[in-house]
Amino acid sequence: MFNCGKIAIIGGGSWATAIAKIVVEKTHHIGWYIRRDDRIDEFRRLGHNPSYLMGVRFNVDEICFSSDINEIVEKYDTLVFVTPSPYLKNHLKKLKTNISNKFIVTAIKGIVPDENLVCSEYFHNVFDVPEENIACLGGPSHAEEVALERLSYLTVGCCDEEKAQAFTDILVNDYIKTKTSLDVVGIEYASVLKNVYAIASGICSGLKFGDNFQSVLISNAVQEMSRFLTAVHPIERCVYDSVYLGDLLVTAYSNFSRNRTFGTMIGKGYSVKSAQIEMEMIAEGYFGTKCMKEINRHMHVNMPILDAVYNILYERISPQIEIKLLTDSFR
Amino acid sequence: MFNCGKIAIIGGGSWATAIAKIVVEKTHHIGWYIRRDDRIDEFRRLGHNPSYLMGVRFNVDEICFSSDINEIVEKYDTLVFVTPSPYLKNHLKKLKTNISNKFIVTAIKGIVPDENLVCSEYFHNVFDVPEENIACLGGPSHAEEVALERLSYLTVGCCDEEKAQAFTDILVNDYIKTKTSLDVVGIEYASVLKNVYAIASGICSGLKFGDNFQSVLISNAVQEMSRFLTAVHPIERCVYDSVYLGDLLVTAYSNFSRNRTFGTMIGKGYSVKSAQIEMEMIAEGYFGTKCMKEINRHMHVNMPILDAVYNILYERISPQIEIKLLTDSFR
Repeated sequence: MFNCGKIAIIGGGSWATAIAKIVVEKTHHIGWYIRRDDRIDEFRRLGHNPSYLMGVRFNVDEICFSSDINEIVEKYDTLVFVTPSPYLKNHLKKLKTNISNKFIVTAIKGIVPDENLVCSEYFHNVFDVPEENIACLGGPSHAEEVALERLSYLTVGCCDEEKAQAFTDILVNDYIKTKTSLDVVGIEYASVLKNVYAIASGICSGLKFGDNFQSVLISNAVQEMSRFLTAVHPIERCVYDSVYLGDLLVTAYSNFSRNRTFGTMIGKGYSVKSAQIEMEMIAEGYFGTKCMKEINRHMHVNMPILDAVYNILYERISPQIEIKLLTDSFR
Repeated sequence: MFNCGKIAIIGGGSWATAIAKIVVEKTHHIGWYIRRDDRIDEFRRLGHNPSYLMGVRFNVDEICFSSDINEIVEKYDTLVFVTPSPYLKNHLKKLKTNISNKFIVTAIKGIVPDENLVCSEYFHNVFDVPEENIACLGGPSHAEEVALERLSYLTVGCCDEEKAQAFTDILVNDYIKTKTSLDVVGIEYASVLKNVYAIASGICSGLKFGDNFQSVLISNAVQEMSRFLTAVHPIERCVYDSVYLGDLLVTAYSNFSRNRTFGTMIGKGYSVKSAQIEMEMIAEGYFGTKCMKEINRHMHVNMPILDAVYNILYERISPQIEIKLLTDSFR
């Protein structure tokens, strides 16, 4: 039986914190790479992440913090990457340690910019990690609800089912149910696309479309997602499994989704720049939209929702015009 | 080309009022059967339905009201039935006129009690209406949003595509987009099941499950619906078309859904009777649950969500126990 060995978390945001909570409750020890030393000091002093999910208390004696990614990577066997996708390359640049024999779990719901690769492909192509050593973690999971121990379902994708199973054994507990999947790339793309569709949902909400239309938008988004996944990775999958449909629903129907909020501001007439300033952050789907558009330039899948969001965000075409066109294409 | 002829609405509720608005804007004349004369008088005096969608103004000169169903049925060619399903039989009992040569459109999202038939089957079996003269109207459509002229998508199902098309031509306008389908029975069953799932969604919300779990519930509901539709009417259909998935989403994710509100009260610990008294009405899904359970006794489809809602509503098993069992069956 495969053993995950010692597990480290790479990244200090809210989803990283939620995963750390789940893992350390089972293993009673984790490594944790957080970029800034002052944050680590604060974390140790307070007993919780100073910036995210502050209600989640940790026994800091069970955590080996480091701001040196190489120290963490050397000491640990399983590396769970949970950074925002735009920063992944910067973190990995510092790497002097070979990671090809590590078990890599990517919980990053995004695409590596410029490379236009999902994270599993990036680890495989650039860091020579064999495919059977790469897993992805998906499923509908607001970090805030995991923090509150509300029942959530996570899926671990890996082409080596035994390894996927081993990692689900780490995650499963009273409030986390798990399943395994062989569809690594499909899960990763689905988790990027759902952010694009959450932006679309927000735009329509900002334009004062109602619930009737939102449900038609999401129904069409599921079909668009299904078409793309079939084209990019043609294996048998059930798109209404929770890791695909559920993740889309929790993002697109949530008022807490940053991508949806960003879209709502765009729909109300804010410029992309103003919306980003107002939100004090950049919604991940903003980058995802550009990456997916570029990837689909070679795939030629019919993706009217992606195209509309791209045109609105990057070509400055008015939301009214783009969404009007979209409504004519819907079924 | 088939012509719908003169169109009458049978029923005086909010969805009936929304459909009347759509139709009369196109045809400038409708017949309208409303059971109570005092309501008709009020309607004429006020220029709007006195009880539902009161913001929708009608030119009452374009409406031939009657509380005599036979008068309406004799005079009109296309009869759009929009009563709550538990009352359909009572209305039809009064019928002395042959309706087998009429074009029947059922916009009733429910099952005929005791008969355990969807409405199209009931009209066919009991009133000898040939299948090609029966259509159903489906799609995600809060009547309140149609009243506000917010863009909505409706689907007309009929085994005679020309007739379906003729009725969509009546409906289509600036805020209504339409499509046709051959899947009459599938659309009808889907519209019953979505109310059951909306109750389930409410129960889970009342039990304090979060958005992560709701999305897993809905994902599993789509799969359960798909299994049942395939068993009951095995034609090729795309369950993520808006008439199936969209209608489920708009009901299950809406706080305005009476079925969801009813479920929420049950989840919070109200008895069925208290919840019904508190709501001053009976949610349609309450009957739908019983009918579907009885129908599935012969079909033997794996329907854990339906079973759980049935056990909670009719067998007085605690929501905690039933939903706990459900969580173990989910994927």
